[in-house]
Amino acid sequence: MSIIKKIFSNSRSNEDGIFFDEVSKILGFKPLNLNHYRKAFTHRSMNKTDDEGNPINYERLEFLGDAMLGSVIAAHLFNKVPTGDEGYLTKMRSKIVSREHLNELGKDLNLIRHVESKVSTQHFGENIHGNLFEALIGAIYLDRGFTFCEKFIHKKVIVPYVDIAKLEGKVISYKSLLIEWCQKEKHTFQYDVFEDNGNEGIKYFGVKLKIDNKIVAKARATSKKKAEEKASQRAYFAYQEKINKK
Amino acid sequence: MSIIKKIFSNSRSNEDGIFFDEVSKILGFKPLNLNHYRKAFTHRSMNKTDDEGNPINYERLEFLGDAMLGSVIAAHLFNKVPTGDEGYLTKMRSKIVSREHLNELGKDLNLIRHVESKVSTQHFGENIHGNLFEALIGAIYLDRGFTFCEKFIHKKVIVPYVDIAKLEGKVISYKSLLIEWCQKEKHTFQYDVFEDNGNEGIKYFGVKLKIDNKIVAKARATSKKKAEEKASQRAYFAYQEKINKK
Repeated sequence: MSIIKKIFSNSRSNEDGIFFDEVSKILGFKPLNLNHYRKAFTHRSMNKTDDEGNPINYERLEFLGDAMLGSVIAAHLFNKVPTGDEGYLTKMRSKIVSREHLNELGKDLNLIRHVESKVSTQHFGENIHGNLFEALIGAIYLDRGFTFCEKFIHKKVIVPYVDIAKLEGKVISYKSLLIEWCQKEKHTFQYDVFEDNGNEGIKYFGVKLKIDNKIVAKARATSKKKAEEKASQRAYFAYQEKINKK
Repeated sequence: MSIIKKIFSNSRSNEDGIFFDEVSKILGFKPLNLNHYRKAFTHRSMNKTDDEGNPINYERLEFLGDAMLGSVIAAHLFNKVPTGDEGYLTKMRSKIVSREHLNELGKDLNLIRHVESKVSTQHFGENIHGNLFEALIGAIYLDRGFTFCEKFIHKKVIVPYVDIAKLEGKVISYKSLLIEWCQKEKHTFQYDVFEDNGNEGIKYFGVKLKIDNKIVAKARATSKKKAEEKASQRAYFAYQEKINKK
């Protein structure tokens, strides 16, 4: 009996170890209490409950994560756009935390791969991606507090996606902006696109962008065009920082 | 010339000192950068602008404070009501951060007394109170960060006002609950009501609630009934804590 117990507890801690590594990779920092993240990846179809009979799944965490995301983005916009009035700030925030955008963020992190569910993930609608993203933020808040939420949102949402000019419709395409810049500054550029299907049934495209024959940005998205645009944006911001530092 | 400068700078720092004391009293902690709070009390009619020409008034701070309030209340409800699902949590939060409730909170702190405005405060609508309350939270966030927002909201909103049972409509009146309790436990009780008009043109009522001839709670509100109810709630919670500690 004790051997069985030992085997069980070993396999359990191996599982914990794998999950810990996976979560750390997603977060970019070490989680302290894995249970919050387990909950964030548990679908209601698992019918799990705690000792008091309360359901264990990610739905309540979505509420918490949505609130944290809202306030982090609010603070960012407030500081970043001193000329924007209340109406402007509200509108910009809605664009950033739109359902569509959250779904994209969740997809990018491939969160669905970690979901525990009795229903096949193919039966989930599109919103599962955004819901998991919100739940993950809720779990971060419970595990490490507001400052870590802020860091995570900064790294995963604000830096790669929140560009005021683009949100305002002033920049239509980073790809054309980048190409223009390369031509003007006499740099060569090349987009290498490859299919990258993973094993979860959703088609992904990967893009490596080379400038002067060096890879300067990579991106992954559900269409070739989106992946190119995303890589261009990343490269554009990377170069912008360099230019500003000079 | 230098004497005039000195007199001016003295009177300026006296003003600062008074404002510092007033703000500290409202917050329950010391502000670090008074400018944020000055902005939180500046009405657009003052037509103030910063060096870049951006308007200095509390309107943008409302946006920030609203977001912080939303996430602090979300976290509180999430932890306090483990049985509540997403829909429940959303509904409860809306009740707590309702316009009506925020106006009441702003009125209680008498924030309007500190407003710098070229329009008489009598011409402001009812919502000025809630707007100032939100702006104050925004200023706290900028001055001291999320944790201080949390502390302030806990002290000024959650402890005195957020009662899940009452919000769910399970408790209709704390006054009747308290009277019932006093009668059952053989305590005497007495509500002493007095008018308390301040100097800002709004009529206020104050209530001191005595149990066994000792003042156990005080409250201030725009009607006698509201002030009695508020004092009863405070007393009820104070006694509940005592009972729970036993």
